Amino acid sequence: MTKTNQGKDLKHLLSTEAASRSNSPLKDAFKYYKAPGMTFLGGGLPLSDYFPFNKISADIPTPSFSNGIGEPITDKNKTTVEVYKNEIDNQKKLQVELARSLQYGYTEGAPELMNFIREHTDMIHKVPYDNWDIIISVGNTESWDSSLRTFCNRGDSILVEEYSFSSALETANGQGINCVPVAMDEYGLLPNKLENLLKNWIGPKPKLLYTIATGQNPTGSSLSSQRRKEIYDIACKYDFIIVEDEPYYFLQMEPYTKDIESRDKKQVHSHSEFLGNLIPSFLLMDQEGRVVRLDSFSKVLAPGLRISWIVGQAPIIERYLRLHEVSIQTASGITQSITNALLQSWGQKGYLDWLIGLRHEYTHKRDVAIDAVEKYFPKQVTSYVPPVAGMFFTVVLDASKHPKFDSEYDQDVLKVENDIYEQGIKQGCLMIPGSWFKSQGQSVPPQKHVPSNPNERTHIFFRGTYAAVPLDELIHGIESFAKAVKIEYGIE
Amino acid sequence: MTKTNQGKDLKHLLSTEAASRSNSPLKDAFKYYKAPGMTFLGGGLPLSDYFPFNKISADIPTPSFSNGIGEPITDKNKTTVEVYKNEIDNQKKLQVELARSLQYGYTEGAPELMNFIREHTDMIHKVPYDNWDIIISVGNTESWDSSLRTFCNRGDSILVEEYSFSSALETANGQGINCVPVAMDEYGLLPNKLENLLKNWIGPKPKLLYTIATGQNPTGSSLSSQRRKEIYDIACKYDFIIVEDEPYYFLQMEPYTKDIESRDKKQVHSHSEFLGNLIPSFLLMDQEGRVVRLDSFSKVLAPGLRISWIVGQAPIIERYLRLHEVSIQTASGITQSITNALLQSWGQKGYLDWLIGLRHEYTHKRDVAIDAVEKYFPKQVTSYVPPVAGMFFTVVLDASKHPKFDSEYDQDVLKVENDIYEQGIKQGCLMIPGSWFKSQGQSVPPQKHVPSNPNERTHIFFRGTYAAVPLDELIHGIESFAKAVKIEYGIE
Repeated sequence: MTKTNQGKDLKHLLSTEAASRSNSPLKDAFKYYKAPGMTFLGGGLPLSDYFPFNKISADIPTPSFSNGIGEPITDKNKTTVEVYKNEIDNQKKLQVELARSLQYGYTEGAPELMNFIREHTDMIHKVPYDNWDIIISVGNTESWDSSLRTFCNRGDSILVEEYSFSSALETANGQGINCVPVAMDEYGLLPNKLENLLKNWIGPKPKLLYTIATGQNPTGSSLSSQRRKEIYDIACKYDFIIVEDEPYYFLQMEPYTKDIESRDKKQVHSHSEFLGNLIPSFLLMDQEGRVVRLDSFSKVLAPGLRISWIVGQAPIIERYLRLHEVSIQTASGITQSITNALLQSWGQKGYLDWLIGLRHEYTHKRDVAIDAVEKYFPKQVTSYVPPVAGMFFTVVLDASKHPKFDSEYDQDVLKVENDIYEQGIKQGCLMIPGSWFKSQGQSVPPQKHVPSNPNERTHIFFRGTYAAVPLDELIHGIESFAKAVKIEYGIE
Repeated sequence: MTKTNQGKDLKHLLSTEAASRSNSPLKDAFKYYKAPGMTFLGGGLPLSDYFPFNKISADIPTPSFSNGIGEPITDKNKTTVEVYKNEIDNQKKLQVELARSLQYGYTEGAPELMNFIREHTDMIHKVPYDNWDIIISVGNTESWDSSLRTFCNRGDSILVEEYSFSSALETANGQGINCVPVAMDEYGLLPNKLENLLKNWIGPKPKLLYTIATGQNPTGSSLSSQRRKEIYDIACKYDFIIVEDEPYYFLQMEPYTKDIESRDKKQVHSHSEFLGNLIPSFLLMDQEGRVVRLDSFSKVLAPGLRISWIVGQAPIIERYLRLHEVSIQTASGITQSITNALLQSWGQKGYLDWLIGLRHEYTHKRDVAIDAVEKYFPKQVTSYVPPVAGMFFTVVLDASKHPKFDSEYDQDVLKVENDIYEQGIKQGCLMIPGSWFKSQGQSVPPQKHVPSNPNERTHIFFRGTYAAVPLDELIHGIESFAKAVKIEYGIE
């Protein structure tokens, strides 16, 4: 099965900065590093003899995690992985010895680790063009910062979801980039609104769309396969990059159902079931090579690993490489060695077991959260859509039913929102007001925002997470916030 | 001993980007994180139950490293440090548990690790003002990239050493920053040339001087205490920041002496001797808080740790914090936990023992390299100054004595340089041509470069390292390169 599609040439979309980066002659000289018969006095590499780490080992859980991935590690379900400074003969595994991972080099990431991720990526996303590539990064936030530097100049505009991850917006704001909001409903970005916006656009067209397509932060929404396809076609038509920031991709869950009995039956168990149930990514439909995918271990292994990766067409990934060479260089070597040891020990199948375990855990947490919302929140002012992915749920409230809405607050929904936020804190539960995530950018001409439903202007929402607290505290917290809502609305 | 000096207000030197970064309201909400009685549903933090690392341990050498720091680790001189996911009662050490280091948070760096570095910094540099602060980073290259983003806009000029680390120059070039070279001699930057340049400067003054003051890359030079003082005074007079990039600071060595007998006697042994022999840093003389110091474990522990730190006045470090929050976030948590475990196990004194060991090793390597240069290079065309710090030595050659200089090469020194470089490779030793490190920036008006000695225009140099190869290979390499030089000059 030979692919022949090489992706479109998109270098006209590069930023001034990215287009200008040149290859250092020093890097050229490095082709002689370790060449036979050559004494290479060209680089300032310390001898690995002086690295004060001889062996690093980690206790990790053993697949298939049949009792759940949060089970305490005991001697029975424990594997100890070891990485030595130098390869030990009887240890002919795919290890990244410390002598290599602690040295300079490999801006792309340690080959063994990157090959594992590459194989995993092709299994999940079946990238439909040939010359895709991958580079390690130190978290999706850094990947996003680098993406902006790769495509945008100061003063450029980009497209973002109307409500988006506030740190991501701040990354762009700092770089002087205008984040133009695209209208969304409870299922995410609206393709027709996106197309309208672009049709009427005046001035230089946006270089990219930034989307958290799966388990969106803050709304918890996930784009359907159909919407993704429509958005991708719009990207091709208007010639922009789609940056899909997908830390929550593997926090996809079973659909919520109120019927508790039927829940267990819906759980996926086999690898093929699991793979078949994943929402298709933008990368999977990327015939032209205009998707840059930001992927990460932060939500599936641990945030503190600071290991993430960027997938895209090779000529674009090469521009990230040049940028990383003069900024972060690469991810921590110790962490690459240890994470690689874990993944090689688990294998692709063991890693899928882990991800299936995560799916079970998050499905259960989401169910508990939504059950509690359903139970405690006053129905007369509340609506919600149960999320199918991610860490967040949102509770939508009708601000117009707040007693002070007309009388004291002059129909200012933000005043209602703030009252409820503060009452929540008083009652002992903090959820984040939706308006905190609203993008402040402006299109030219200003986007005429026609609410997709007439109530929209009077609706506010709060973002909560079911990820961060134990289940009993989660229920208690939701009950407390619901109490705050009732107090504010004078209900009961 | 209370300090009262708060450092000067230097916010007029910030870049547009750095000045514009605001504090996210989300960060404000985090003050309620783990507040008593509060269910915090505000952040997308995964439960640490799902972090698949229960315990990480590392075998490290035990102080005082009396047989040298490169000694193989055996059971006799080995310490095993362990970090658990959660604090173990009988392990009441200053550990950074994995549940914390693998979680989000602490953009500044893990408190235990940063306190160790803070204490170390104050011991070495005795920072002369009160409100200095420190932030972790993932390598001096990233710290430098962040420094440029903190102080410079596209189109700004900065001051750099005439020959400088090519990656550092490329970091600036990519950002559209003009690197104006300041003349140097074999002992580094020339303060009078710097002052002349600034006196005649037309247009917006440079925001900062970038200097690798100790063991300079590529020249191997180290600035004397006197020159540092003069340069610091110029920085105050012309109101710019000094960014001292000091990865090689602890690769300071004994002065070179040809007399082999006397070498051992000069070695420092006690902590006080060691501390007393360190060249004073710019930070140490920084009354006004206008020095930003970039420090790193890359050359003293291992590059692959990707742990470095930035020291400066608190309001400036706070701007780096805002930038890191929306870019790298922080260094790898596993690596912070393990590095902290090593440092807490060694203690400040053990760490000094390690640094003293490094001093011995590098002194010896430098001696071997310079002995070989002295022995093999043809004296009639060669000159050199033995370095007192860092990883690099340079060999200066008189291009005008090359047989083709006048006849074929029309006095183009670069042609001679290239010939010798390529002949070196043929003979089996690669050293880097000095011209590869030359900054290409321009001042307005263009700097009239008056060579400080009449031969300068006809002199070229090659940079070698004594750090990266075993000693026998080092000698062999230098002999090979010397042979290349002799062939090119037709000597012997």
